[in-house]
This record gives sequence, C-alpha cells and structure tokens, in this order.
Amino acid sequence: MSVTAAQGFRAAGIAAGLKPSGKDDLALVVNDGPRFGAAAVFTSNRVVGAPVLWSRQAVKDGVARAVVLNSGSANVCTGPGGFQDSHATAEAVAGQLGIGAIDVLVASTGVIGVRLKRDNLLAGIPVVAGALSAEVSAGEAAARAIMTTDTVPKLAVRTIETPAGTVTIGGMAKGAGMLAPALATMLCVITTDAVAQAGPGDGPDLDVALREATRTTFDRIDSDGCQSTSDTVVLMASGASGVTPDADAFAAAVQEVCADLARQLLADAEGASHDIAVTVRNATTEDAALAVARAVARSNLFKTAIYGNDPNWGRILAQVGTVPEEVAPFDPAELDVSVNGVKVCQAGGAHESPDNVDLASARDVTVDIDLHAGDAEVTLWTNDLTHAYVEENSAYTS
Amino acid sequence: MSVTAAQGFRAAGIAAGLKPSGKDDLALVVNDGPRFGAAAVFTSNRVVGAPVLWSRQAVKDGVARAVVLNSGSANVCTGPGGFQDSHATAEAVAGQLGIGAIDVLVASTGVIGVRLKRDNLLAGIPVVAGALSAEVSAGEAAARAIMTTDTVPKLAVRTIETPAGTVTIGGMAKGAGMLAPALATMLCVITTDAVAQAGPGDGPDLDVALREATRTTFDRIDSDGCQSTSDTVVLMASGASGVTPDADAFAAAVQEVCADLARQLLADAEGASHDIAVTVRNATTEDAALAVARAVARSNLFKTAIYGNDPNWGRILAQVGTVPEEVAPFDPAELDVSVNGVKVCQAGGAHESPDNVDLASARDVTVDIDLHAGDAEVTLWTNDLTHAYVEENSAYTS
Repeated sequence: MSVTAAQGFRAAGIAAGLKPSGKDDLALVVNDGPRFGAAAVFTSNRVVGAPVLWSRQAVKDGVARAVVLNSGSANVCTGPGGFQDSHATAEAVAGQLGIGAIDVLVASTGVIGVRLKRDNLLAGIPVVAGALSAEVSAGEAAARAIMTTDTVPKLAVRTIETPAGTVTIGGMAKGAGMLAPALATMLCVITTDAVAQAGPGDGPDLDVALREATRTTFDRIDSDGCQSTSDTVVLMASGASGVTPDADAFAAAVQEVCADLARQLLADAEGASHDIAVTVRNATTEDAALAVARAVARSNLFKTAIYGNDPNWGRILAQVGTVPEEVAPFDPAELDVSVNGVKVCQAGGAHESPDNVDLASARDVTVDIDLHAGDAEVTLWTNDLTHAYVEENSAYTS
Repeated sequence: MSVTAAQGFRAAGIAAGLKPSGKDDLALVVNDGPRFGAAAVFTSNRVVGAPVLWSRQAVKDGVARAVVLNSGSANVCTGPGGFQDSHATAEAVAGQLGIGAIDVLVASTGVIGVRLKRDNLLAGIPVVAGALSAEVSAGEAAARAIMTTDTVPKLAVRTIETPAGTVTIGGMAKGAGMLAPALATMLCVITTDAVAQAGPGDGPDLDVALREATRTTFDRIDSDGCQSTSDTVVLMASGASGVTPDADAFAAAVQEVCADLARQLLADAEGASHDIAVTVRNATTEDAALAVARAVARSNLFKTAIYGNDPNWGRILAQVGTVPEEVAPFDPAELDVSVNGVKVCQAGGAHESPDNVDLASARDVTVDIDLHAGDAEVTLWTNDLTHAYVEENSAYTS
C-alpha cells in the first residue's frame, strides 16, 4: 500500500527505455481531487537538477495535480536544454490529463551531467497515463519505477480515525542509503485524502506538516555526508475522504510515514554492515545536539572502526571535540559515551572495558553521547564505512 | 639534516619501551642558546591530550629550551593522572638539563584513552638526555623515534644567506597522512639559529612566521577530515648564528620547511593511490575558496571516484553546491571544472569528454574549480578513499 492507499489518487509505473537495463523507469501519481493542495521540500544544495528548478516554481502556489518521476537520469548540470526537457515532460503529462503544466511536478534520479533520453521519455508519457489506476498494484508499480540501486521498493501507510471518518496517508520513496550512486538521491511522494492545504485554511497546513516531518526523519539520516542535487519530497492532499483531521494528529501521521520510509532507506544500504543510531543527549539546544551527532556520523575513522566491530570511543571524543564551543557548549572533561549500552567513557576518560561491547552479533549499533550541558536530545542515523562502499562508489560512474 | 642542522641544537632518539614493537619511541630536542625564543601551534580540537594542555601553558612566555616527544601513547582522555604524567616528563627532562620544567614542551602520539607507561618513560629520560648530540645522525634518530605508522622519517632544511652570514632552519615531522591511526596526529619540531623571538623584538617574530606558515601548509592538507587531539608544531630559535634575518625572508623559509614536510606527510599515505590537489580559483575571498576546496576534499563519493580513476565532475559540483552562499558567493551556472587539465565541465554543464582524462597512469591528480566570482585562490591537498584506508582503520584499534 502506498500512494494509491488514500482516496482520490491514481498511479502507474512503466518502462520508457531510460534505463539501459530496460527496467521500469517512469512513474506517474495523479490527484483526482476534489482538492489539489500540495507542499514540497527540496535539496538545499545550490547545484540542483532541472526538475528541482521546475518543481520549486510549480508548487509555489500550493497546488499540484500530478507528479511525474523518472529514474535513469537525474537531469542535473544539463543547462537550458535540460530545463526544456523537464518543462516538456510536464507539458506532456498536462496534455494527457487535461490540466495545466504548472500543476505538474517533475522529479528525476540517475547520473549527473547527462541529458536524458527525451524522445523515450515523451513517448512514455501517454503509456504511463494510460496505465493509471487506483489499485494497490498501481501504487507499487510506481514505487518500483523510481528505484535506482534500491533492492526493494519503499512503501508506507498510516490512517487517522476520527468521529467523521478515516483519513489515509500513504507514501513511496527511493534511495538506497549510503550505497546509492548518484549521491543517494531521495525521492518521496506522499498522498492523503485529508481535507488540508498548503498554508492556513480549512484543515491542516500541508507545508507545516511536511517540513516538520522531514526535519526529524529524512534530515536525520546522514549515511555518507554527501548531499544530493535532486532530493524531493512531495505531499498532495485530495480531500476525497471529506474528513478534516486535527492538525497535530495529521502532522504526527505524516511524520510516521516519513519515519517509516526513512528507516526503509537505511535498511536498504546493503553494503553497510551496521546501522548506527548516534544519540546526543543533554545538549543546550537541539541544534547543538545535531551538530555533535553529525560530526560523529561523518567521521570516516569512527565509521571504519564500527565496521571493524571496534567501539573506539577515542575517535568519537575526537569528533565531538571538533564542534566549536559557540555551536555546542560542553565541557570535554564531562563527556560520557556508551556504545550498545556499555559506558566505555565517563567524564572524558576510559570507564568500562570496550571488550564488553558486542558489535559483531547485530546490525544495529547505538552510540550514546552525554554532553551534560542541557536537556536537548537528537538521534541521527548513519552507516559504517565498508569495503563495499568503496567498491560500489569507485567501480561505477554514477 | 633536520633539527640539528641549525647551530645551537642537540637531539636524540631512543627506545624507552613505550611501543610494543620495541622500536625507538622517545625523542628529545634541546636548544643550547644563547637565545631561547619559541612559538607553537596546537590542534584546535576541544578534546586535547595532556601534553597539549601542558605545552600550551609552557610556551605562553615565548620561551622553550627543550621539546620531549614520545610515540606509543597519545596521553589523551587520561584525566588528572595523564596530566601528571606529562608534568613529570617535563620535570624529568628539566632535571637532566638543569633548567626549569616550564621551559620544557611535551608532545605525545599514539592510542587515545590509555595511560602511557610512565615508569618506562621516566626511566628513558636520562638515557635520551645522555644521547644528546649535535650530529646529523642525532637529528635523524629523533625523527625516527616519533614515527607511528610513518614508513619514513620526515626531514627538511632551508638556509637564508645574508651579508652577515647564514641562517639555517631545519625541521622534523611525523604523521602518515590518511592512513595514520590515532587520528593522523601531526607532530613537528622546527629549529633555527636565527636571532628571532616570539613577539616583537630584535629579529623576526617566531609566532607570526609559524602561524602564517602552518596556515598555508599543514592546514591545507585534509586527508580524511578527521582532526587530531594532539597536533603540535614547535619553532625554536637559538640565535647561535648571530644573524638577524629579514622578517619576510625568514617567514618564507619557515613556510618552505613546513611545505616540504607537509608534502612528505602526504607522500607517506601509502594506502592512498592518488594525491589530489584541489585548487579553487576566482573565489571572492581566500576563506571562500578554502571552504569550497574543503567541501570537495571531504566528499567520500568524490574520493572513491578518484580511486576508481573516474573524473566524476558531477560529484564535484554536487559538493561545491553544499557550501552556503554567505560563505562562498558564486553562480552554479558559471562553474568550470578541470581534472588533470581537461575541462570536463564548463558553465555548470558537460564540456570535454571525461574519457580524455587519464587518472590511471600517475599518482598526482589536479582538480581545478573556477568559481568566476572574484580573484582569490587556494589549493588544498587530499587523498583518494581506498580499500586500504578502510582496511587499516577498521582492522586495528588506534
């Protein structure tokens, strides 16, 4: 169950000949209304793909009626010609659906710097539009068509029960964690039949709900510190349930769908041997906690140590110490570190024996850093740095 | 030729039993005067070793008569006991030389979080003091005793000819680039017989010369983004030549010694298959250029691509795009990128074929990024990310 779980949506996924493998590479998700509210968040990278340039503008009015997504080319660093490709794609979809191109969002993933096969893509648009369906299988087909190095499609659904009826929120995502070539681009489409819109109005604010959800889910995965040029997360609301949910309940459900999909992205990082939850607690602020967690999560020495099943707290403290005091106030002599629940470092020095830490028998690793400086807490997810990462990312252009 | 090249200095290196291997692990460099000016720069990490805490205070008065250095333990995260170890080391050296402990700097490198073998170290002090000599071989022995995963000692000498005579500047360093366990700690001692002092005075300002030299040499190597807790660079001036060199000529020579040693550190990164010079030109400021170069040099996707001999300019542009506009203003649509002289990207898009770039036949790689935003330029050196890096840093606790 994914983007077709909510009432008012149809989807499809087909092979348009963009991938050399011949696998499915073109997906379409359509909102049949009666409402067409939409919100989206994009990569904060300054180098962005043509689809991001197009979609940023298209969603500005808070309305979108369709999202067309392709794998096989990211359409990034492709100049004015690349932008025309994205524009033409939106126009072709609009023509098929009888709507305006400005209500069609575009998202692409694949190699950077290479023009996509425009003729193949445009020829595929009538085919994918013709395959649109509200069936469960159609949502799953769309999720498969946006896969690149993903080994499984990522799907999630949540419902909210209210006295007035049920609201459904469903989503699909692609992105294969740290092993994804093409900079681990993350594409995600979430659909809901709630009565809601971007900005203040009759129901929950889609923009507020989506930004808060991504901030605490997708933005808390940092697999290799490399930021994509194409990340796109779209939330569309059809209003087809006729139910206006409580804003907090709606935001919580959107957050759950994003968290579910984020966990699936992490779990699909096959070359990684460990998923690592870095929790920083008792920081002065959430930003301070996040800065410390990110410094640790981006340390190659830390990540290779975990790959070697070595709970090397010295490498952790050395990374914590790189965060400037104005960003995260703490006293280095008060730092505690636990790995898988064993407090290997207390008050900045050795404590329990690292030999007591078992890293070899499970994929999940927890690193807990206590700054003793406040009461804010953040958990950031990352992976270990493995031979498989080096192999995947050195052996193939992407 | 290294720390004993300049007049007025003696050195020695011995095995004190700190390294399990039994190799030399204790070095001493002594300034016999007649002047004792000294300057030092240390890691900016907030988690620092006891030797850094000690030496920062000891050098504050601009005077140092000796530096004692050990490998085998970094003496970091070792609490009050670790600080007492460093203090006792300085006292022992001072006792042997008949000077004050506050004029003895201490530097250590090795594993974090483990107390050093204090009895062995203190027993070694009379031995290393007894071995002090102004011979070339003594300087080389000191350079060997501070090696950890280094495969060769790093030595450099420059002279300044003046009408009044010759000034000599010699140095030694340890640090094995990206493959160094213990966070690639870099220790460096530079000696000169120039008439000079820390701060304004009779001759060149040692502090000014050293800070400018390290800023443009050691600080421009970023092999794996991980910052040590123990980095220490010391410059001592004996005045024994009786010559007061021109401040600019002196600063230039110190910079050359540091640049020479920095290149040797990079060349000893054996697990790396490529040394990469990332040049960012036409930035608005030097800081802007450095921020862009560092973003690229720290990208695992870029570094694995170079390992795979893939001139992947898309990954380069994606990293350039992560630098905030307030840090480095530029227009993403104007970026040019050349790899080994082949302009693979012009105006933010594909240009010459990446197939024209030969990365396989040489260790050195040049990446040239033109921001078209100003006239500042910086070159930062890094390595590729290889299987050997993962192997070295996952297979051994360090």
